[in-house]
Amino acid sequence: MKRYIAVVGSSSCPPDIAKLAYEVGQEIALAQAILVCGGLGGVMEEACRGAQEKKGITLGILPGHQRRGNPYLTLALPTGLGEARNFLVVKVADAVIAVGGEYGTLSEIAMALKLGKPVIGLKTWELFREGKADQGIIKAKNAKDAVNLALGRSGSEE
Amino acid sequence: MKRYIAVVGSSSCPPDIAKLAYEVGQEIALAQAILVCGGLGGVMEEACRGAQEKKGITLGILPGHQRRGNPYLTLALPTGLGEARNFLVVKVADAVIAVGGEYGTLSEIAMALKLGKPVIGLKTWELFREGKADQGIIKAKNAKDAVNLALGRSGSEE
Amino acid sequence: MKRYIAVVGSSSCPPDIAKLAYEVGQEIALAQAILVCGGLGGVMEEACRGAQEKKGITLGILPGHQRRGNPYLTLALPTGLGEARNFLVVKVADAVIAVGGEYGTLSEIAMALKLGKPVIGLKTWELFREGKADQGIIKAKNAKDAVNLALGRSGSEE
Amino acid sequence: MKRYIAVVGSSSCPPDIAKLAYEVGQEIALAQAILVCGGLGGVMEEACRGAQEKKGITLGILPGHQRRGNPYLTLALPTGLGEARNFLVVKVADAVIAVGGEYGTLSEIAMALKLGKPVIGLKTWELFREGKADQGIIKAKNAKDAVNLALGRSGSEE
Repeated sequence: MKRYIAVVGSSSCPPDIAKLAYEVGQEIALAQAILVCGGLGGVMEEACRGAQEKKGITLGILPGHQRRGNPYLTLALPTGLGEARNFLVVKVADAVIAVGGEYGTLSEIAMALKLGKPVIGLKTWELFREGKADQGIIKAKNAKDAVNLALGRSGSEE
Repeated sequence: MKRYIAVVGSSSCPPDIAKLAYEVGQEIALAQAILVCGGLGGVMEEACRGAQEKKGITLGILPGHQRRGNPYLTLALPTGLGEARNFLVVKVADAVIAVGGEYGTLSEIAMALKLGKPVIGLKTWELFREGKADQGIIKAKNAKDAVNLALGRSGSEE
Repeated sequence: MKRYIAVVGSSSCPPDIAKLAYEVGQEIALAQAILVCGGLGGVMEEACRGAQEKKGITLGILPGHQRRGNPYLTLALPTGLGEARNFLVVKVADAVIAVGGEYGTLSEIAMALKLGKPVIGLKTWELFREGKADQGIIKAKNAKDAVNLALGRSGSEE
Repeated sequence: MKRYIAVVGSSSCPPDIAKLAYEVGQEIALAQAILVCGGLGGVMEEACRGAQEKKGITLGILPGHQRRGNPYLTLALPTGLGEARNFLVVKVADAVIAVGGEYGTLSEIAMALKLGKPVIGLKTWELFREGKADQGIIKAKNAKDAVNLALGRSGSEE
């Protein structure tokens, strides 16, 4: 059965984050996994661009009512659910890779952790509770490492 | 128009967190605001208990299919949406008070910040990005302070 | 435990339907049940108006992002889910009363039938499959009859 | 841009309905459209089987928490939303073809009509209001006709 990996991050991002997202997309495609995302620009677009260059499949779960996403989506699904679609991006995936990210990304990280899915982080949020670091997000060294961790961890999930 | 304040936190919690939640519930009721929560035990139950003692209205948005929540709910709404109901708890509120909390709570904090709603924290998550503290969560000193901050901030929202 | 009855119908309606909805709202309040609806005008507003005149509790589950519903709502919950909120209106209720109605109402009737909840109809849709009448919608003679049927049937549900 | 056609119907069905669903799936694939469905058995499975035989793409939007759908899904998305996933099946499609069907199918037909999407019917529900037939569902003569109608009508939608 194919693996589904969600890539979460902001719809606008600086060049270093964009490059990371692009490489994550490439690695997901090379690993024959399906890339799931929120379907918009920034990290989502760069990851999809990378995946499509390596002939991967990309799925965009869009917040709006129109089938308007980034140009690198194999399938584009307009849900009309607004930010509630973040839940779906995470729910349908076996593992989540966060690249950079703002509050929307944090909501996806937290939901994935709540659902018991592996969350791999690249230059993303760090979490503390009462001064103690939370270990939920697995830090990756680079894009290839992130995808390996996503696949390895998600392997034990089902 | 009445104010709606969501209280988010874990379904089981230590005594100090329970006490805080109870006091937050009391203060919400005294402020004539409506308490919204996930409807289950722990922080949710203690907050509702506090609110009902002060004759407040409590609304539980339940994850399951049955109308089974904590005993201090004025209205109990079974959504059958599982963890996706976290989105609704936050969406229908004007402000969010987080008391302690695990990953589910973090997903609610992050979604509220994404939606631009004030988030007040009591002994809850602390957020960092690349070593820099994020200021999204407003730290409160105590329950009364938390409710004041929730009302004051939410006042500027509409 | 209190009963929750959803009243579904169009946001604009002719006078005979408005009168029926108003009476249904009154009867729900007199039966001490909670009235759930989509929170907007027409049938929803008339039912809430009737319920509030008899000191009943009304809950509006709104499609939009703002807490703007009809003026007769005890609680108004903006979900931002658009038409997907129809699912919630039905899901959180023990029984559904349809008064008149267009396609949105039909989606609520069908979902309630799918979920196994009693559906009572007043001047509403009639359903056929391959020329054969479907008996899912229970026809009521008047508002009082509708609420009795809603309560009686929902009594056997839990 | 690719067209997305939802095929809705029951998870178990008699042979004549199964055959129709299979043919609808074939025609969707031959038309280079993407087949969207609820991902389970019966009409959904037969339609996907037909589509995959003609090298089409099939997308299953599953109600449950596991990636377990019929064996003919290109992509299988577990939403955990239960019957609420019916909304998504319809929302992400440009047009809907109903083949036979029970109450769940009716909820999808009604939601599609509410959302203004073309609904094509094959041996499915017939709708009346106060004795008058509703013309919302466009009756097709056969599978090929249904897909033609779905594509023609959805053409004018965007």
